[in-house]
Amino acid sequence: MRELVNIVGLERVVSDIGQEIESDYARWDEFDKSSRHAVHVRNGVIELMPTSDGKRYAFKYVTGHPNNTHKGLLTVVAFGVLADVDTGYPHLVAEMTFATALRTAAMSAIAARWLARTDSRTMAVIGAGAQSEFQVLAFHTMRGIKNFRLFDTDGAAARKLVHNIQALPQHDICLTPCKSIEMTVDGADVITTVTADKRKATVLMPKHVHPGVHINAVGGDCPGKTELHVDILLRPDAKIFVEYEPQTRLEGEIQQLDASSAVREFGDVVRGRVAGRESDLDVTIFDSVGFALEDFSTLRYLSRINQERGGQREYIDLIPELDDPKDLFGSLMGSRRGSRLSAVR
Amino acid sequence: MRELVNIVGLERVVSDIGQEIESDYARWDEFDKSSRHAVHVRNGVIELMPTSDGKRYAFKYVTGHPNNTHKGLLTVVAFGVLADVDTGYPHLVAEMTFATALRTAAMSAIAARWLARTDSRTMAVIGAGAQSEFQVLAFHTMRGIKNFRLFDTDGAAARKLVHNIQALPQHDICLTPCKSIEMTVDGADVITTVTADKRKATVLMPKHVHPGVHINAVGGDCPGKTELHVDILLRPDAKIFVEYEPQTRLEGEIQQLDASSAVREFGDVVRGRVAGRESDLDVTIFDSVGFALEDFSTLRYLSRINQERGGQREYIDLIPELDDPKDLFGSLMGSRRGSRLSAVR
Repeated sequence: MRELVNIVGLERVVSDIGQEIESDYARWDEFDKSSRHAVHVRNGVIELMPTSDGKRYAFKYVTGHPNNTHKGLLTVVAFGVLADVDTGYPHLVAEMTFATALRTAAMSAIAARWLARTDSRTMAVIGAGAQSEFQVLAFHTMRGIKNFRLFDTDGAAARKLVHNIQALPQHDICLTPCKSIEMTVDGADVITTVTADKRKATVLMPKHVHPGVHINAVGGDCPGKTELHVDILLRPDAKIFVEYEPQTRLEGEIQQLDASSAVREFGDVVRGRVAGRESDLDVTIFDSVGFALEDFSTLRYLSRINQERGGQREYIDLIPELDDPKDLFGSLMGSRRGSRLSAVR
Repeated sequence: MRELVNIVGLERVVSDIGQEIESDYARWDEFDKSSRHAVHVRNGVIELMPTSDGKRYAFKYVTGHPNNTHKGLLTVVAFGVLADVDTGYPHLVAEMTFATALRTAAMSAIAARWLARTDSRTMAVIGAGAQSEFQVLAFHTMRGIKNFRLFDTDGAAARKLVHNIQALPQHDICLTPCKSIEMTVDGADVITTVTADKRKATVLMPKHVHPGVHINAVGGDCPGKTELHVDILLRPDAKIFVEYEPQTRLEGEIQQLDASSAVREFGDVVRGRVAGRESDLDVTIFDSVGFALEDFSTLRYLSRINQERGGQREYIDLIPELDDPKDLFGSLMGSRRGSRLSAVR
């Protein structure tokens, strides 16, 4: 991924991934959909996210281990596999730790294209963890947002974000660290919550939300982990958008609501089946948890761009090659096709 | 796997895997269990089979594409990943096409240890596909069966099996190809059905089943695919054993029964919670579909034996190494820790 980003450029990679994701949501019906498979372990969670469009099959392995940084390890690591549906043979195994960060931000920016006010100029970013720079870059590149206001309780994390953004070649990004959430959301058209607390938190309170704002709720993404006060979700002017409803009922902000509460699937918005934002006064909420389709789109993109651009490739023996595919045992024992056929009457 | 089998020996590998599986079923309670995730595609099925014992996490990717052999490809291909639960980091990616064949046969032989009559001497094998030699080898090695009777409608498949078994160094295996299922099951103490038809077939009829026999039903392993006539399952003297009941209800022979019908989980037999065979006249049926625990046991074995015996290893960059795990973005952009920390106030 580092090499690919070097060759292609980060802005191009994130916006290309966004386009792939959007075009796949436009054919939402074609996908085999299921909630991700999660095993909750002592220190975190290990998940598998599979899907298929009938031509290709993809899955991602992804973890969440908040205490890993104490050991010098990553909180979230991921890899993915893309396979051919006709044969079941995998043809790409890809590191996806970076790609997950890129596709999550690309998804947020694509959702905002349909849900945020078109005159949005300022975004509040609450949380300066691993995902935050990617959100800033995606909203700058894909939505033209230039003013970012930042809050994190961890000063070192906020300084890391400021430094990383300053080091970018884009000089029209204005990033303002703020001392409180109130100051951060003041005048924001988009509010992105991207905290990592693994509990029901109320990062964003009703008083922080004004008519017309788009809330990009990224951090709440597993059972028992939320960021928005429930009264924000219950506002009469709020419209809630989700990726795949059954999974978001388990993992998203809408854990806090009745299972019958009204939500709209993003794929239906892209396909014109349900409305996105209907008025400049709507409060739109993208209750993002991350869906397998986004990884599918990303893996297909990585496979294509890697072929086109000559990215780094190595071949691994994941599936054995057999002289005779009907003779698994003989192949394991090293027998040869010719001698076998002639030896048997 | 070829190299490992060369170094360690096939008999040793299959019986070691059987021991690992049995010891894991003896701690059935410790495992996170779920039915496998299956995507049914045009030509077959693609499955993910995850489980964890709270220390290690494993999953297998496995396919079933019956028409693949026409293209010179394998019907079933598989690979697996073993990860550390504490960190979520994967530490083994292994080819499992051969390993799946080995562990399926090892599981059958282990189940027969608890379910077949101890004086079993003769096994009928119905079906001469990819799994059949492995079944013969496992029952010979692990159960001491020396007489095998074979039936397949495909003469070439039967000849392949005869040849492969004759090529083994074990000279005390007597394998008799038969012209009908009646002749094959005549006098058999164990009947192994291992056909690959992807439909509700009735390979084994009630007239083929006599008191005291153990039926090792391996071939029926997905929705709509069965091998036994339902009246065999309904015999008053029949006792049905399954790996993980929720999955077998979907995939096993017991698809043909009411969801409330009595079955016994094998883990409960190994732990002494329920009886296995209770009389020499019982008809025991192991309704095998393959459960994630068996792949978990196999991957752990492969990991250990590969370390001990110096099997082939290659290292792949599946997870990036970061100077600062809290700085994903900076790492992607190639910034250096030293310069970053000094550049920010």
